Amino acid sequence: MTHPATARLLISCPDGPGIVAAVSAFLFEQGANIVTSDQHSTDPSGGRFFMRMEFTLELDEDGWAALEDEFARTVAATRPMAWTFARSTGPRRLAILASREDHCLLDLLWRTSRGELDAEVAVVISNHETARRSVEAFGVPFRHVPVIPETKPASEAAIANAVAEARADTVVLARYMQILSAGLLERLGVPVINIHHSFLPAFAGADPYRRAMERGVKIIGATAHYVTEDLDAGPIIEQDVVRVSHRAGVGELTRMGADIERLVLARAVRWHLEDRVLVDGNKTVVFA
Amino acid sequence: MTHPATARLLISCPDGPGIVAAVSAFLFEQGANIVTSDQHSTDPSGGRFFMRMEFTLELDEDGWAALEDEFARTVAATRPMAWTFARSTGPRRLAILASREDHCLLDLLWRTSRGELDAEVAVVISNHETARRSVEAFGVPFRHVPVIPETKPASEAAIANAVAEARADTVVLARYMQILSAGLLERLGVPVINIHHSFLPAFAGADPYRRAMERGVKIIGATAHYVTEDLDAGPIIEQDVVRVSHRAGVGELTRMGADIERLVLARAVRWHLEDRVLVDGNKTVVFA
Amino acid sequence: MTHPATARLLISCPDGPGIVAAVSAFLFEQGANIVTSDQHSTDPSGGRFFMRMEFTLELDEDGWAALEDEFARTVAATRPMAWTFARSTGPRRLAILASREDHCLLDLLWRTSRGELDAEVAVVISNHETARRSVEAFGVPFRHVPVIPETKPASEAAIANAVAEARADTVVLARYMQILSAGLLERLGVPVINIHHSFLPAFAGADPYRRAMERGVKIIGATAHYVTEDLDAGPIIEQDVVRVSHRAGVGELTRMGADIERLVLARAVRWHLEDRVLVDGNKTVVFA
Amino acid sequence: MTHPATARLLISCPDGPGIVAAVSAFLFEQGANIVTSDQHSTDPSGGRFFMRMEFTLELDEDGWAALEDEFARTVAATRPMAWTFARSTGPRRLAILASREDHCLLDLLWRTSRGELDAEVAVVISNHETARRSVEAFGVPFRHVPVIPETKPASEAAIANAVAEARADTVVLARYMQILSAGLLERLGVPVINIHHSFLPAFAGADPYRRAMERGVKIIGATAHYVTEDLDAGPIIEQDVVRVSHRAGVGELTRMGADIERLVLARAVRWHLEDRVLVDGNKTVVFA
Repeated sequence: MTHPATARLLISCPDGPGIVAAVSAFLFEQGANIVTSDQHSTDPSGGRFFMRMEFTLELDEDGWAALEDEFARTVAATRPMAWTFARSTGPRRLAILASREDHCLLDLLWRTSRGELDAEVAVVISNHETARRSVEAFGVPFRHVPVIPETKPASEAAIANAVAEARADTVVLARYMQILSAGLLERLGVPVINIHHSFLPAFAGADPYRRAMERGVKIIGATAHYVTEDLDAGPIIEQDVVRVSHRAGVGELTRMGADIERLVLARAVRWHLEDRVLVDGNKTVVFA
Repeated sequence: MTHPATARLLISCPDGPGIVAAVSAFLFEQGANIVTSDQHSTDPSGGRFFMRMEFTLELDEDGWAALEDEFARTVAATRPMAWTFARSTGPRRLAILASREDHCLLDLLWRTSRGELDAEVAVVISNHETARRSVEAFGVPFRHVPVIPETKPASEAAIANAVAEARADTVVLARYMQILSAGLLERLGVPVINIHHSFLPAFAGADPYRRAMERGVKIIGATAHYVTEDLDAGPIIEQDVVRVSHRAGVGELTRMGADIERLVLARAVRWHLEDRVLVDGNKTVVFA
Repeated sequence: MTHPATARLLISCPDGPGIVAAVSAFLFEQGANIVTSDQHSTDPSGGRFFMRMEFTLELDEDGWAALEDEFARTVAATRPMAWTFARSTGPRRLAILASREDHCLLDLLWRTSRGELDAEVAVVISNHETARRSVEAFGVPFRHVPVIPETKPASEAAIANAVAEARADTVVLARYMQILSAGLLERLGVPVINIHHSFLPAFAGADPYRRAMERGVKIIGATAHYVTEDLDAGPIIEQDVVRVSHRAGVGELTRMGADIERLVLARAVRWHLEDRVLVDGNKTVVFA
Repeated sequence: MTHPATARLLISCPDGPGIVAAVSAFLFEQGANIVTSDQHSTDPSGGRFFMRMEFTLELDEDGWAALEDEFARTVAATRPMAWTFARSTGPRRLAILASREDHCLLDLLWRTSRGELDAEVAVVISNHETARRSVEAFGVPFRHVPVIPETKPASEAAIANAVAEARADTVVLARYMQILSAGLLERLGVPVINIHHSFLPAFAGADPYRRAMERGVKIIGATAHYVTEDLDAGPIIEQDVVRVSHRAGVGELTRMGADIERLVLARAVRWHLEDRVLVDGNKTVVFA
């Protein structure tokens, strides 16, 4: 997907005059060619500023190290600033956690296998054996980690180990029906993306399609978000919806929702992998 | 909009065999020609059955009375059944309640004036004077009924009187920012439709656009529903949504939402006026 | 998906009084319980009438034969009428034709394998070998039928034979990039559904995503339709769209379009299999 | 809507390294604070580059003249470049042309009157008298210019004069059912925006809703575009759609389409007024 020499600079800092000028001058002087550039300010006076620049530049490892040093000493030294040069040194590595429902899992496997997501699935971990065969058909390792309340700490340790062994840089919960403890989230140490089968904040928690039917809503949806300790309350990356009518029972809502879940999760994962999602407190800035 | 000789039969009853046959045989024997027919069963075994038949039939008032008697003695006597023959004896009469925001109000006035809604606006009641001129330009009576906490009972009595004097058969809350007491709802005695500026059940209550922005949702919406004592919890008639991005502040969300509110409310009112909305507990069946 | 005792009666005839009454009385007298019923009249005076009734009824084969005789002698004898009793005597049989692009093909295989479509894929025929392994992993026979201009008649004969051997009752063109001759369509003798990667009638013909980009449209779409001799002009079953921006090149449009194509084709095939699509000249009535 | 000191710099030029750096450094040195910035390159190698920067800067008229001189001598001198500093020196001035259908016309009048569009309607010109009263109620001058084939040149001269007298900087065709000659377009000398009641390029030309119904499409739409000599083929600014079913006749499609037309035209006019639309040959770049 990405040309080897493409890199992305991500910046988040308090807004103020001269940031764009300083950053673009820096990249120009380094010989970089800016391919796309996106900025967002939550408020030009006293707000927060976010920037993503995608550029091409041929450098060896020493060159990159020097460039980062230079950036730190010049641009980043002028104000408090979170910044990252994200380089494509190979595809990103996903660990996918799933349970019995396999539609989101298979969709991600299918999209990575056809090159639509710039990543490889390093491991699939499930608390059920059901998907083993489908996963292994993609040449992807499958790990069965059962979860029962009594052994949850041990299960979480096994998950953390499997993710670490796989050297995954992103964890995706593809309809994984277990809550991750704060301790596990910390131990994972990488971003975790979840797909919730409702249009959050409506129907947070369990069994959203049944509750949607009981409330008689005319539209259902799905939400992809980063996972935080606070269940179903993390920063929303993407949402989408579909119209339903009084004819749809829970089974039909579930079937229609499955198509939306797949699309929303795939979009969120793709934008995450392309460094298009910047977290702003409990919200996201998405340069899609 | 509707031809004088068009009538609608609305039925709600426990599901069971033979209902469609009995009703359609009855109408055929009376010489009616069925134009459209819709049915819905929540469950063929033990569920609830809803039917709407639109038909043409030339009868004088005595003829209609005889037909209703005959229907009661034959079809309706065989099972517990709620039924109505809704005839077009002239346009329906709306009472619209509004506050400062006038976009929903003006949209309804505009649609009735161009014949898009088969109704006339019998009165507009507002707790602010601001819209008087716009309303009167449509030739519609405007009543200013201020609402302050101390005099709320008197205000509600004034509203109830104005609605009764206008002989309105439907009340529409077009962004009316006051809560109607249970007593007023009962006294009105006609269906009340509200437009809520969020995708219910998300952001029920006050200031939904601000809360939507703070939660960082990627889609906002509006909900038209029948008003019950339970605030923002009545049967939903229609909902729609629009995508938003991180760029939109509260002002922009409000502006984008206004367009959705107008469309959703107009659709809900039109379906209601055409007897397409049947209430099923806290849900609706919409034969749109 | 469908309970064995569920059957569907499909009717198409000139509109006139008494049809619904006659049909529903007939089914009631036979002991059927109508589950859902849909009607549509293109014009109550002199138009065409379409009906679909889904009902439950326990009968053996002789019983069904007797019922059809009785229907022919009574209801159908009163007016010119096309009618079918469609019974679930097992899943329908699909033959899928594909070329290099496999996203629609795999989506249909995946949906049938998880029981979302009430059908089995009896054979996949492709003019390329590329998808063989994926198809056979689903336990579905794969037939490679190359097509070159000089041997097109022989290729079409091979396709017709493969479809006939598979006893397929529906053919789906899942991004099959060859035009079917009128002779082949006639020889197939079953409905053929195609997915076109544009929002027809815009960009009929070849390379629609490129032409969409060149025209600068802000929305792209896909269209599922029954195939007729007239290329891309058959009755439309379903369409859907997605917003695009100036940023999207042809590759991005193709990727975004692939998701829409899968959804639109899956919906069209499901509605077809559930006998929800009635053809009305060059249009369709879809009781979805 | 816009703060007096807000200005926008619009640039269109061949892509190449250093543009963003040069422009942002220039603005920074002038003391401007960049509020939002958008770039688009059709192709980083040899493509065309588009930029819109919105910034705040306090300058008197002499200051602006000096700034433009400086920009021309420094940044713009380095490469072929089309550039504009668009300043808010008061609301823009619209001339609206309409015919009998008034929904788009009234919607624009309503949005300008409530401050949603940063413009005033300087004149409404119609080939019918029907809308005079509605227009004048907004305090907007109404000019009736009948058009019959024999006197078309005279009518077009009258239109051009009325637009010139009104000092309009944008002309909007709000369902104006006459074709503008190339001569008139040239004489107007300002951008002309049209709303076409179909999802172009489908159903270009006359009577699109009837043709949509006859083709049996499942979705209808509307298209706002800049007018060029080539009818219905100018650069598309915005499109949107709505689902329809077999139930909808031409009247219903027209009614549903009217809501889409209003929204699409209002969005396009707003983006145009906010200098968010840059023309790229026969396409547009929309920084919305």
